[in-house]
Amino acid sequence: MRILKKIFSRSRPEEGGIFFGEIEKIIGFRPLNIEGYTMAFTHRSSNKTDEKGNPISYERLEFLGDAMLSSVIAAHLFNQVPSGDEGYLTKMRSKIVSREHLNELGRDLNLIRFVESKVPTQHFGDNIHGNIFEALVGAIYLDAGYPACEKFINARVIAPYVDIPKLEGKVISYKSLLIEWCQKEKKTFHYDVFEDNGISGERLFGVKLSIDGKVVAKARAVSKKKAEEKASHRAYFAFQEKINTK
Amino acid sequence: MRILKKIFSRSRPEEGGIFFGEIEKIIGFRPLNIEGYTMAFTHRSSNKTDEKGNPISYERLEFLGDAMLSSVIAAHLFNQVPSGDEGYLTKMRSKIVSREHLNELGRDLNLIRFVESKVPTQHFGDNIHGNIFEALVGAIYLDAGYPACEKFINARVIAPYVDIPKLEGKVISYKSLLIEWCQKEKKTFHYDVFEDNGISGERLFGVKLSIDGKVVAKARAVSKKKAEEKASHRAYFAFQEKINTK
Repeated sequence: MRILKKIFSRSRPEEGGIFFGEIEKIIGFRPLNIEGYTMAFTHRSSNKTDEKGNPISYERLEFLGDAMLSSVIAAHLFNQVPSGDEGYLTKMRSKIVSREHLNELGRDLNLIRFVESKVPTQHFGDNIHGNIFEALVGAIYLDAGYPACEKFINARVIAPYVDIPKLEGKVISYKSLLIEWCQKEKKTFHYDVFEDNGISGERLFGVKLSIDGKVVAKARAVSKKKAEEKASHRAYFAFQEKINTK
Repeated sequence: MRILKKIFSRSRPEEGGIFFGEIEKIIGFRPLNIEGYTMAFTHRSSNKTDEKGNPISYERLEFLGDAMLSSVIAAHLFNQVPSGDEGYLTKMRSKIVSREHLNELGRDLNLIRFVESKVPTQHFGDNIHGNIFEALVGAIYLDAGYPACEKFINARVIAPYVDIPKLEGKVISYKSLLIEWCQKEKKTFHYDVFEDNGISGERLFGVKLSIDGKVVAKARAVSKKKAEEKASHRAYFAFQEKINTK
């Protein structure tokens, strides 16, 4: 709380200020106890300690969040792919919780804007995004237990990103899948790309994908190509039934 | 169910026979659905398949159980050792879920007696014990969810075995700790060792540890030394308060 007041002293300080509201939006429920979330965004360089002198930083929460991610994803794959053996399940999980993918998840939520650090956040490598994402999962576990963690991972990892055909390499590009479908269905499509640098100052690209003149999906990523693919993926899910049955 | 009837056709076939009752004793609650437990004890060599032709064996459940063990142990360590950093927590967890330790857990519960296999169980290596233990944890998750899993791991792994001072290498031998205490307190002690081969035909040793003529702990293990250490550990926990305060 002490830390929060310092960072976000502008509003509702009794609830942790802006941070409290923003975290609520991200995690999808009202935090019961803000402490773990504060820890999830505290970098070691802040040199904070608890009353017993133990350092406060997101690193321990990363360990916890990583474990929760692994078990929720394991259960999901186990249930979704009854034909997959142990080796297959292990491989699929490691693709889902890959460093690159976790970084993408953290970056998409722009979690870095909350980080308290004595080192400027621009100096961190790419992995800070994934590390903070894992720490956030750990904080959710501490705050509200396994079911809340499961719900968050379902909403923020599995539903938008876990795509078994693509992970298996059966679908290489959603953009080509979507274009093919549009051509077959005689629909027009347009990718509107723009630079969108966000708060953190990173170079990012935004994409709006329109079909028949209507925006059907938006996405943001580090490259134009990735943003287009992400938007196509989202559109694909929106149209999945139509695409598969035609 | 079909498989169970074949293995354990002697009693209560409508409930899965002896197996049902034995599993209940081991897991500490009445199974809601016996199917997962059957799978946890089916070796690949049985060549069973489900109605869709997917092979039934404990290997996929091992993957699931391993994930559940990792996350329950992670949460336990996170809460118990607030001073431990990420590296420490990772190291401690890998000691707890080491192959050797999992094998010991499975062997202690004599899980191998339930295994259905075309290969004689004596031909399996040591790892079968740990693999089946992991699969059992996976089956508990399928049957009754994460909280049941957590409860089982607490009762069967954490409470009897997870001993942070020993894992940290601060306590090397509970036998020497106990002997030292007996000598200081002028108590007599006696380790009564006997061969105890159990149902599976493995060579095992049983130990009864008496203090002042009264049996205070029993244990069974693959070597005399291990059985003595295990009995000492159990006695240590029974006497912990006395030993630490004197």
